[in-house]
Amino acid sequence: MDKAAVFSFEISARDQRARAGRLSTPHGVIETPAFVPVATRAAIPGLSAEDLKAIGAQVLITNAFHLHLQPGEEVIRAASGLQRFMGWKGPIMIDSGGFQIFSLGEGRKQGLSKVASEYTGEGDRGEHPPAANAKPLVRVDEAGAEFISYRDGSRHRFTPEGVVETGLDLGADLIMPLDECTSPLYSYGETRAAVERTHRWALRSLAAFQRRPAVGQALFGIIQGGDFEDLRRESARFVAGQAFDGLAIGGYLGQSRAHMAQVLKWTIPFLPEYKPRHLLGIGWVEDVLEAVEQGIDLLDCAAPTRLALTGTLLAKREKRFRLRIRNETFRKDLRPVEEDCSCATCRGYSRAYLRHLFMAGEPLGMHLAVRHNLHFMEILMGQIRSAIKDGKLASLIREWGNYPSK
Amino acid sequence: MDKAAVFSFEISARDQRARAGRLSTPHGVIETPAFVPVATRAAIPGLSAEDLKAIGAQVLITNAFHLHLQPGEEVIRAASGLQRFMGWKGPIMIDSGGFQIFSLGEGRKQGLSKVASEYTGEGDRGEHPPAANAKPLVRVDEAGAEFISYRDGSRHRFTPEGVVETGLDLGADLIMPLDECTSPLYSYGETRAAVERTHRWALRSLAAFQRRPAVGQALFGIIQGGDFEDLRRESARFVAGQAFDGLAIGGYLGQSRAHMAQVLKWTIPFLPEYKPRHLLGIGWVEDVLEAVEQGIDLLDCAAPTRLALTGTLLAKREKRFRLRIRNETFRKDLRPVEEDCSCATCRGYSRAYLRHLFMAGEPLGMHLAVRHNLHFMEILMGQIRSAIKDGKLASLIREWGNYPSK
Repeated sequence: MDKAAVFSFEISARDQRARAGRLSTPHGVIETPAFVPVATRAAIPGLSAEDLKAIGAQVLITNAFHLHLQPGEEVIRAASGLQRFMGWKGPIMIDSGGFQIFSLGEGRKQGLSKVASEYTGEGDRGEHPPAANAKPLVRVDEAGAEFISYRDGSRHRFTPEGVVETGLDLGADLIMPLDECTSPLYSYGETRAAVERTHRWALRSLAAFQRRPAVGQALFGIIQGGDFEDLRRESARFVAGQAFDGLAIGGYLGQSRAHMAQVLKWTIPFLPEYKPRHLLGIGWVEDVLEAVEQGIDLLDCAAPTRLALTGTLLAKREKRFRLRIRNETFRKDLRPVEEDCSCATCRGYSRAYLRHLFMAGEPLGMHLAVRHNLHFMEILMGQIRSAIKDGKLASLIREWGNYPSK
Repeated sequence: MDKAAVFSFEISARDQRARAGRLSTPHGVIETPAFVPVATRAAIPGLSAEDLKAIGAQVLITNAFHLHLQPGEEVIRAASGLQRFMGWKGPIMIDSGGFQIFSLGEGRKQGLSKVASEYTGEGDRGEHPPAANAKPLVRVDEAGAEFISYRDGSRHRFTPEGVVETGLDLGADLIMPLDECTSPLYSYGETRAAVERTHRWALRSLAAFQRRPAVGQALFGIIQGGDFEDLRRESARFVAGQAFDGLAIGGYLGQSRAHMAQVLKWTIPFLPEYKPRHLLGIGWVEDVLEAVEQGIDLLDCAAPTRLALTGTLLAKREKRFRLRIRNETFRKDLRPVEEDCSCATCRGYSRAYLRHLFMAGEPLGMHLAVRHNLHFMEILMGQIRSAIKDGKLASLIREWGNYPSK
C-alpha cells in the first residue's frame, strides 16, 4: 500500500477562515471538522465499539504513555494493532505522553491540577490530576523522558523515536510525536528552552518516521510555546516548515477562551492550507465553535466524557450547555435530557430515571450519560460541517446562544 | 382488563419432575424455566433495556425496599410505573424487602455476609453485605418491619399491606409479599416463630391484594423454614393452600447445594402443579440445573452480574464455570471468552482486551462482562427449556460436565 495513496486531506468547502474537508486514513475517512473522543487506555468509559458507531464517532484518540503501562505495546501488537485489539474498525489517533511530561512532572510539583484541566490545552487527556507539592514522576533530558509508573513505581524511558515507532507498530492512523508540554508557571526562558527541545525532538521524530514504511499512517507536528506570542509564532513557523502530514497545536493556551483564541490567531496564519490542523485537549462547546471558526479541523477532549461520569449532561438550552442531572428539579421530570435529541439515551430514558441512576450509584447512569454527551458532540460537529458548506457558520454560532462575542 | 384473562401459567412439557411452560403477564410472556436478572434499584449494572432485550432477558426483578429509599415510589408512580420509568417493556417482578429484614438485622449483628451471599437463598439480591457486630438497621414486630435507612438514617415502616400496594401501584407483574427471612444461626424456636409470622403476613398480603383491582398482576406466596424439615414442610403446606397466583421458596437453604436440594425435596411435593414456582436468590449454574430438575420454573440471582463486576466470566468449559479474566494467562489470549458464544461481547472482543479493561479499571470491562454473563444464563435456560421439551434434561445435565452426582 503506497502511503500517499492512503493518507490524504481535501478541503471541500470554506466559510471565512473555517474549512470543511475529508481526511482519508487507512481505516476510513474522517469528515472534518471532527471531534475526537478520548480513549486513553483503548476504551471509552462504558461504551462499546458498536455504541460508538451508533453515535456517529469517526475517530478515537488513545495514549502511548498509558498504553505502554497497561496493557503494554506487545499485547496490542499480538492482537495485530489497536483496531483489532479494541474492536473499533475506524481511524485511531495516538497521543504521545507529552502532556504527561507536564502533568506528572511540573504539574505535580506545582499543584496545577485545576489549571491543567482547564486551559493547558492538553489538560483533559485522561491523566491523574497532579497533587500540590507532589514528587515529580518524570525526568526530562535531551534524549527523552523517563517516567516512574504510578502503577508500580517501575521506570519507563520514552524517546521521540520510540514514540513514533510505537504509533506505527500499533497501527495508529494519526500519530502525535513526543513533545514537552510546559507549565503555565514556567518563565519565558524555561518555556523557550522547552520549545526548542520540542523542535529538536520533532526532527528526530520525523527522521524515525521516514525510516519506516508507514502504510498510510500520518505523523503530526506539535506547536508549543505556552502563551508567549513570539514563541508560538516561532514554533508555528518551524513546525509548519517540516514534512509532517498534519499539524497540531498543544500545550498551555492561556487562562481563558480569549487567550486560547489569541494563541490560535498567532499560530494558524503560519500553517499551510492543505494540511489538517488538530487542536489538542479542547472540547468545551464554546471553545470548539471558536476553534473551527479560526480554521481548526480536528479537536480531542475528555471533558464530554468526564462530565458525563459525574452526571453533567450536555444540553443546548442550558447555561454553559450543562444540565446537572442530580439536581432535585429533575426528580419527576419525565422529559428526555433534550427534547429533540436523537440519541438512544434521549429516545429511551427520562431525566427522572437518569437522576435516579446517578443518585443510586448505578453504572447504567454513566453509560447512558456518556452516550448522550458524545452523541451531542457529534451532532454539534455535523451542524458545524453543514454550516461551513452552506457558508452559514456565523449564524450557527449565533444560534448556539450564549457563545460570547469576541 | 380482566385479571384472569391476563395472568396465566401453562405447562407445555414435562421431563420427570421438570416442567417447561409459558407464564403470561400484562407485559408479555415468560418462557419457563426462566432466569430473572436482578435489577434491585431498577437497573442492571451498565446494561440498557435494549442491551437486555438483545441478550434475550425475559423478566427482571426489582426490590421494593431499595426503590422506596431511592427514588421513592412517588417518582415511579409519576412515570406511570416501573416499565415506563426503566424503559423496559417486558415483565417485572418485585421483591419485598424480606431479605433485608435478615441482612440489615440479624445478618449485621451476626456478621453473616459470607453466609448471606452464598446460601441464604435470597443472599444475592443486591443488599449491602452486613458487617460483623454491626448495629441492626431493622426492627420487626407483628405489624411489619421498621428500617433505618443506610442512606440518611431516616426511618421507614414496611407492612405486608404496604408492600403489596407498592407492587400494584408500581405496575409490577409478579409481586413478592413481605416475609421474614431467618438467620442461619437462629434456633428452631426462633425460626418457627418467624415462619409463623411470615404466614400471618402472607394472609394479610393476600387480603390486601384481593381488595385492589390488580389488572393481571400476580401475587406469590413465600415458603420459609430455614433448613428445618418440619418447618419447611409445614410452610409449604400452608402457603400452597392459599389463593396465591404463584409460589416462591425463600430464606436460608442450608450450607451447601446438597442442603438446597434437600429443602426443595421437602417443599415441592406440596406445591400444586398448575402454579408457577420461583426459587429466590439462586443462580449458580449447578444450582439452576438442580432446581429445574426438581420442578422450579423461575429463579433470580445477582451472582452472574456480581461476578461480572469483578471480572469473573461464566464459561462452560472452565472449572465451576468461571473464568477469571484478570489472570495473567489471558494477557495475549486473542480468543473470545467462549468460542461458540453468540453474545456481542464474544463476537467483538478478545480475552486479552477484556483483561486489559479490568486491569486498567475501564468501565467498559464491566459492561462487556455483565452482557456476557447474563447472555450465558439465557443460553443455559434456553437449553434447559429445549431439553425438557425433548425429554433430555438428564443428558443436558451430564453434558454440563462437572455437575456433581446426587
